Amino acid sequence: MMHPEYVTGFCDGEASFSVTVSPRGSSWEIRPSFSVSQNEASKDVLYKLQHFFGCGYVRPSRSDNTYKYEIRSLPELRDKIIPHFQKHSLYTEKQKNFEIFVAIVKLMLGGKHLTKDGLREIVLLLEKLNPKCKKIYDRKKLQELMNV
Amino acid sequence: MMHPEYVTGFCDGEASFSVTVSPRGSSWEIRPSFSVSQNEASKDVLYKLQHFFGCGYVRPSRSDNTYKYEIRSLPELRDKIIPHFQKHSLYTEKQKNFEIFVAIVKLMLGGKHLTKDGLREIVLLLEKLNPKCKKIYDRKKLQELMNV
Repeated sequence: MMHPEYVTGFCDGEASFSVTVSPRGSSWEIRPSFSVSQNEASKDVLYKLQHFFGCGYVRPSRSDNTYKYEIRSLPELRDKIIPHFQKHSLYTEKQKNFEIFVAIVKLMLGGKHLTKDGLREIVLLLEKLNPKCKKIYDRKKLQELMNV
Repeated sequence: MMHPEYVTGFCDGEASFSVTVSPRGSSWEIRPSFSVSQNEASKDVLYKLQHFFGCGYVRPSRSDNTYKYEIRSLPELRDKIIPHFQKHSLYTEKQKNFEIFVAIVKLMLGGKHLTKDGLREIVLLLEKLNPKCKKIYDRKKLQELMNV
């Protein structure tokens, strides 16, 4: 079994805490995701992470011959992923992303994403995420969301 | 101070064990290097690694606005870097690179790189390094080296 500090160190370099916003009917869907990608030669480490956290799936990405370990389930993010990184802190700028990610997951667990004010709060938090994460959602659609 | 397992985890994602071969006068210079690069926002983690290992330098890279922590000294590689990763193993394919790296450093510490046969042995080990590392040296020059 991997050491918890190894897991934090590896994720500090390789993992992503991201949140996507996409239209769904007359509302918007907010999807937080914790993921780690590796090329095929190192895919074993993803299965070891899956074993360590006891949740999530490893899937191949056909487009670029990589594998991705991902968790999207809110209860699993709340019970397994977030507590791990709260106990074993990240050292890089990813720590800031993690804190924003936690704030968004908490708002969602409280059902805030189902209200206009809650959605606005989430989008303001998303704005603080790093540039990579910003690219995930469409800026025009974001404006529409802010004007709901 | 960083936990040793955090250091291994972070390096498993972000570090590089590389060896360059370049002409020097009538002979060849073999330069092993352990390095970790980060963008400016996360450069602090490099100084923490430097503090952890107690050797090496952090330098800015003007070309791409990143910072690199690097150790090239053979005694420091032997006494500080190699023992760490022997005690706290890597999980990815980087472990194979590390083992080849160790073999090359050991040959150099024994002065083998100063003999034709030793140089050939080192080049054969280099061939086993991953594709990224292979790009470091010129294939034509390698052929010349093999035919010394």
